[in-house]
Amino acid sequence: MAHVPGKDTVLCISLAGRPGSFGVRFHNHLYEQLGLDFYYKAMTTQDLPAAVSGIRALGIRGCGVSMPYKEACMALVDEIDPSAAAIDSINTIVNDGGRLKAYNTDYLAVRQLLELHRVDPNTAFALRGSGGMAKAVASALRDAGFTQGTIVARNEQAGRQLADSCGYRWQADLGDLCPPMLVNVTPIGMAGGVEAEHLAFSLEAIAAAQLVFDVVAMPARTPFIIEAERQGRAVITGLEVIALQALEQFVLYTGVRPTPEQVKLAVAFARLG
Amino acid sequence: MAHVPGKDTVLCISLAGRPGSFGVRFHNHLYEQLGLDFYYKAMTTQDLPAAVSGIRALGIRGCGVSMPYKEACMALVDEIDPSAAAIDSINTIVNDGGRLKAYNTDYLAVRQLLELHRVDPNTAFALRGSGGMAKAVASALRDAGFTQGTIVARNEQAGRQLADSCGYRWQADLGDLCPPMLVNVTPIGMAGGVEAEHLAFSLEAIAAAQLVFDVVAMPARTPFIIEAERQGRAVITGLEVIALQALEQFVLYTGVRPTPEQVKLAVAFARLG
Repeated sequence: MAHVPGKDTVLCISLAGRPGSFGVRFHNHLYEQLGLDFYYKAMTTQDLPAAVSGIRALGIRGCGVSMPYKEACMALVDEIDPSAAAIDSINTIVNDGGRLKAYNTDYLAVRQLLELHRVDPNTAFALRGSGGMAKAVASALRDAGFTQGTIVARNEQAGRQLADSCGYRWQADLGDLCPPMLVNVTPIGMAGGVEAEHLAFSLEAIAAAQLVFDVVAMPARTPFIIEAERQGRAVITGLEVIALQALEQFVLYTGVRPTPEQVKLAVAFARLG
Repeated sequence: MAHVPGKDTVLCISLAGRPGSFGVRFHNHLYEQLGLDFYYKAMTTQDLPAAVSGIRALGIRGCGVSMPYKEACMALVDEIDPSAAAIDSINTIVNDGGRLKAYNTDYLAVRQLLELHRVDPNTAFALRGSGGMAKAVASALRDAGFTQGTIVARNEQAGRQLADSCGYRWQADLGDLCPPMLVNVTPIGMAGGVEAEHLAFSLEAIAAAQLVFDVVAMPARTPFIIEAERQGRAVITGLEVIALQALEQFVLYTGVRPTPEQVKLAVAFARLG
């Protein structure tokens, strides 16, 4: 059924330094499939405080928050959900009658994926990265009961800080470590490529692992994932993260949970954009 | 062709105390007909300064401004077009890369309608009303060269002020005046009805007039217009005003001027809402 915009259509937006197509296609596709009188618009801003005040003043129902606004938004909302409080980083704002509550659905998505893939919390892992998304993933691992973790990050200060906050160790490089789970939360692999520098972890580390988890979603099949699959390893892809976090946003905004089949089709549609 | 929302879709909005359906249906219908990657959303606000800052910060391309924000918006924009400056009242904001310029397309629409209907500027008229829209209509008449005008308004202060600003006379009631043009810029007739109190001017005044101009658009056929047509008088309806002012907004936002036939169909579609 085609959406006919009316005076009561509910608006949701996203704020990103470089707006992408995934969210706008995912949400609008599901609105249409489910017959919801909603509309989703991707935006950017040069003035984050005014943008967030604008969300409140214009009655915009929800807002997805991407880089580089995830930390700065914290001070601009009225309430912080535990999913965001634990990691000082938000990716979702829900506007209930002028009151803004912030969530982190990246964190929620990673928690769900660890359960969905039945990853044993006793699995030791190495996580590469130390940025905002690394914080969400490491916190999700910690809160899911994973105790044997190593944060691998060139940036010692950020790396140590993240490791300390989760009770994990820090290393600048993987070195001789061969943990059964490898997690990439850096942009390595976003550009594709086949050389070693496009792999988040070495061929040897992948060979020694059982499960490979890449947060990079565009492309979903990064060199890291491709190599892991070639070696017959289990994988969790960034596409699963982005789809699940978008789904949780959708539920928060609309109060409606689509069926897995509807989500699958929406993800497929969104990826065409 | 169906609109597929994407990351580059341009957003336009309206701000009104009580958002209506006309604008949202008119603009979105034309976007679709003309294949423009635009979307229009009707909104309201409790915080006008934050809403206008939000327009700037969120990169919203254009904003229609209705009651009760038309005067208060003046101080919140960066530049005022002569169409709005002359009457201290705006109904349109255009956002050019963060710079907000305000227009009054009600004024522009009335100017165009007087030309379109070839109304002789020597025609004497009585205009009932003294609010923001009355100011736009009286100023348009003045600037079109109409010199023989009487502002009819119970509110002496507002009435005298409007009359003085345009060089017209003021009267609390029409009295014995029987001018050839009668202009209603009050809400009288919005509720329909057939009794005398639903008529903006008396049966006798209508009988003595040649041209009747009602700014009330919902319904387009007010008791005043119905009676004038019954008596064989020429009429200009509020529907013509609302359609033309919306068209001028459309052109300001998109830079594209639809054909008269496209506008006619968009108005017909908008009225179904």
